[in-house]
Amino acid sequence: MERSTGAVSTPGALPYYVAFSQLLGLTMVAMTGAWLGLYRGGIAWDSTLQFNVHPLCMVIGLIFLQGDALLVYRVFRNEAKRTTKVLHGLLHVFAFIIALVGLVAVFDYHKKKDYADLYSLHSWCGILVFVLYFVQWIVGFSFFLFPGASFSLRSRYRPQHIFFGATIFLLSVGTALLGLKEALLFKLGAKYNTFEPEGVLANMLGLLLVCFSVVVLYILTRAEWKRPSQAEEQALSMDFKTLTEGDSPSSQ
Amino acid sequence: MERSTGAVSTPGALPYYVAFSQLLGLTMVAMTGAWLGLYRGGIAWDSTLQFNVHPLCMVIGLIFLQGDALLVYRVFRNEAKRTTKVLHGLLHVFAFIIALVGLVAVFDYHKKKDYADLYSLHSWCGILVFVLYFVQWIVGFSFFLFPGASFSLRSRYRPQHIFFGATIFLLSVGTALLGLKEALLFKLGAKYNTFEPEGVLANMLGLLLVCFSVVVLYILTRAEWKRPSQAEEQALSMDFKTLTEGDSPSSQ
Repeated sequence: MERSTGAVSTPGALPYYVAFSQLLGLTMVAMTGAWLGLYRGGIAWDSTLQFNVHPLCMVIGLIFLQGDALLVYRVFRNEAKRTTKVLHGLLHVFAFIIALVGLVAVFDYHKKKDYADLYSLHSWCGILVFVLYFVQWIVGFSFFLFPGASFSLRSRYRPQHIFFGATIFLLSVGTALLGLKEALLFKLGAKYNTFEPEGVLANMLGLLLVCFSVVVLYILTRAEWKRPSQAEEQALSMDFKTLTEGDSPSSQ
Repeated sequence: MERSTGAVSTPGALPYYVAFSQLLGLTMVAMTGAWLGLYRGGIAWDSTLQFNVHPLCMVIGLIFLQGDALLVYRVFRNEAKRTTKVLHGLLHVFAFIIALVGLVAVFDYHKKKDYADLYSLHSWCGILVFVLYFVQWIVGFSFFLFPGASFSLRSRYRPQHIFFGATIFLLSVGTALLGLKEALLFKLGAKYNTFEPEGVLANMLGLLLVCFSVVVLYILTRAEWKRPSQAEEQALSMDFKTLTEGDSPSSQ
């Protein structure tokens, strides 16, 4: 599948797709802000507006930053592997912290309002995403950044890490769509079917979330856009055949 | 990526994963039936129960059958390529027809009840899925079943067909989750947070939809489970270099 170019180069179309993904991502974050600002009274921690911290943090952390963390290996395909790995791990840490703030906001808001927790499909999926994201980070760190995992162990775990990374990202997007729908139906109720401006804006935000995730996945799955094996790693894998990075088989 | 075994064989774990996907798929369909039967009064065409035809048809057609159509190349990996292609195309036709019945049911129900159409995020995503599914089938048929597309055209289109096929499948699952949530919130409203049996059952159905799609995608993305190049096709592509099936590069 992999069409290695041999030379250290960037495929012609990749930067345009990455730029398009970032345009979609930033528009998505801005539109979330616009929705909360225009129709939900804005954002604050110590008031009933605390709830609004939740969707904003989740869109920034678990959609935009998580998506960008997945793209790191495509965008910085010619940087040293270790630098790219550290950036990938760090972006996920930022995403996790922002999402944690969003999670605390909604539990705190529920507590103040004496609302029930964890009854909806959105909340069940959300907790699942959160736990999986944490486990994926810990296991990824142990295998790829912590020195100790062998070449063969890394090679065998890599496809699983990639698959579950993409799955958690998609599950995050699905959970956000469910949350958006929930927020709309709780507030608009039967008025949703009269094409209220808030409903139309939120529907468009939902489609933007879908478009962002499709473009990110498209970039990730193009075989010819995968990170090429680099000279430094090839040399390493020649030196320590059984212990090095394991980029030879798939150059992910 | 492709580790061709050379011999015509089936990887040891594949049948277990396929069996697990079918167990999840059938449970998902049965649970949809149970939800509609226990809490929504069952199914009929000429009454207010017509609405219930919609979720059942969509889960059977656009989730279960569509998922199974994607698995055809893994399950029948040792059959003739043309037979597998025809089965893949036919399963998608069945899925489309069943989904069409589900679509007509909901529009007809809305008309009888004088409800507005196409105002929700669920309906926007649903129409998008439907159009994309139809276009994907027509384009897929033109390239892969209709004789005429050249080897190089097929090779270039194949990764796009696979990516958009998986994307449409995932979008179908996301749309179903939105619809499920909508049906729950419209009926249960504030009672959703009291852990009503219907709410819990529907949440579990939502998680089952997610699990089915994750297992299907896992089977699809395992490099070592991809369809191997077959002797007959290799011979054909040697005979008619520019016109044959185009299985040589990726053996998808």
